[in-house]
Amino acid sequence: MKIKVTGTGLYLPPDIETSKEIAPLIGKSENWILEKSGVSERRISKIDVDQMGAIAGKEALGNSGQPDLIINASGVPKQTIPDTSTFFQREMGFEGIPSFSIHATCLSFITAFHIASTLIESGVYKRILIISSDRGTRGRNFSEPESASLLGDGAAAVVLEPSTGSKKSELLYFHMKTWPSGANLTEVRGGGTNKHPQDKHTTTKDNLFSMDGPGIYKIARKQVYKMMLKTLKNTGLEKKDIDWIIPHQASGKAVDAYVSAGGFDKDKVINIVSKYGNCVAASVPMALAIAVQDSRVKRGDLALLIGTGAGLSAACALIRY
Amino acid sequence: MKIKVTGTGLYLPPDIETSKEIAPLIGKSENWILEKSGVSERRISKIDVDQMGAIAGKEALGNSGQPDLIINASGVPKQTIPDTSTFFQREMGFEGIPSFSIHATCLSFITAFHIASTLIESGVYKRILIISSDRGTRGRNFSEPESASLLGDGAAAVVLEPSTGSKKSELLYFHMKTWPSGANLTEVRGGGTNKHPQDKHTTTKDNLFSMDGPGIYKIARKQVYKMMLKTLKNTGLEKKDIDWIIPHQASGKAVDAYVSAGGFDKDKVINIVSKYGNCVAASVPMALAIAVQDSRVKRGDLALLIGTGAGLSAACALIRY
Repeated sequence: MKIKVTGTGLYLPPDIETSKEIAPLIGKSENWILEKSGVSERRISKIDVDQMGAIAGKEALGNSGQPDLIINASGVPKQTIPDTSTFFQREMGFEGIPSFSIHATCLSFITAFHIASTLIESGVYKRILIISSDRGTRGRNFSEPESASLLGDGAAAVVLEPSTGSKKSELLYFHMKTWPSGANLTEVRGGGTNKHPQDKHTTTKDNLFSMDGPGIYKIARKQVYKMMLKTLKNTGLEKKDIDWIIPHQASGKAVDAYVSAGGFDKDKVINIVSKYGNCVAASVPMALAIAVQDSRVKRGDLALLIGTGAGLSAACALIRY
Repeated sequence: MKIKVTGTGLYLPPDIETSKEIAPLIGKSENWILEKSGVSERRISKIDVDQMGAIAGKEALGNSGQPDLIINASGVPKQTIPDTSTFFQREMGFEGIPSFSIHATCLSFITAFHIASTLIESGVYKRILIISSDRGTRGRNFSEPESASLLGDGAAAVVLEPSTGSKKSELLYFHMKTWPSGANLTEVRGGGTNKHPQDKHTTTKDNLFSMDGPGIYKIARKQVYKMMLKTLKNTGLEKKDIDWIIPHQASGKAVDAYVSAGGFDKDKVINIVSKYGNCVAASVPMALAIAVQDSRVKRGDLALLIGTGAGLSAACALIRY
């Protein structure tokens, strides 16, 4: 699909929480955190997801006017109704632009990227703004040290347009799979009709993030590797042709697996988990935007966006940037 | 876009709550409810949204095997994470099918219908199951009589496939607009990062449905009418060419407006609001499935799916069934 990322934007909250600072709150040592989650610091946002996303969205748009569609591709919403996309639009000062949300937890961005590409290819829209903004630290469960030390806040955005120019940017391949047998491995059980906030049986824990890290890693490592091999096979490419792996920053171990198990060079794998933690759906576009803005990812480069998300799902999108 | 609805499914919960029964709970008379909301009875589901949606989904699939994509297009999720699509898949006994959610509150189904059509047209998927399942009665605020008397529970599903056969089914036109100036007209402020369930400032009211009915109606009537005229103009059709209006069942007044203000014959407008209430995102596919299953909507008929949703958004999809 002939699409091009014509703008990227970031919001990295200024407040830093080090692992030394969070260690006493979760009853673990700084070293335990570094070893288990691989996160040495994370950002804590004082503004809500809509304001965070609007800052990233404005940067991605630059001076090039308004988009003709806004997609929210975050993991957790601002509120149940309406969906967060309208709040992004309000914060950016727009009115009348169609907007909705795509939700696949940590894979929301990769899923939205594919859908936006399809919508551009079909000619319905010409300039789509995708924003992922997550404030996972609002839902940390300090009695679950591993996930509590993983989560961080951040937002990122991209603008997608039809591809023009000599170095033809494109989406070469997309694939996704969901295994509901893993639905309970990552959960926030509250917030909906299951454990409604007004239900007397809903506990504090139900409203906080819960994750079986080792359980996910066991399935994810195998399935993600299979998905990578399938991607290479279906596109007729070899590992060495891929310039960049831009993975979901699930944990230090999960990102390292693209090197240790995946066999990719360490400097080809964009790794921001140590500095920003797991920012839920925002992790993939943050890693992309950071690598584009520091000139690692260049026009014409082949980049594989890939990862797992609650569901349990795995997805990847191979793009020529 | 050459797509065809090849299956429809419904779940209408067996338990009926009459307006006479709810009247004392909201401090109003039965007549007040009938006049304000136009709802004489609604269904109350004892099973959760995933089970409701799975029943509708299975009926839509019939004996024709599993879909290659499952989209949840509901207004309110089962829980915050993972998204409801994986729970639909689990309840239907499938494993490994890609799935995600599209959220545009009451317009989730129309939005998902357009996206699914685009995905089929692009050749990525060949058999997409869209499920809308809402249990709005879980979030009723009895101190807000109008919205409390409006909401009902229900689920519906459709299967979309590439169009074949002589009477070419298709999606002729889609249009959507969102005005964030109306973001506060319909809200559930809780359930996310805004009014987090664990936040001591989050009130009971924040977790319940809140709606400014007259405020929405004022904007909606004008904008929906403009959208209808634009649809006719862009497709070169006249009002008399449209066989069916399948509107979101926002309220009795909102559905009647397609006759009184829109100028369509009463028997062309599918009206299920009196019997089932406003079932959030499930209303549009429920109205479609009911009208297909009682043989009103036939192959080759032109049907306009249309409505408004929290956001505030308006959207329509003109299909040849």
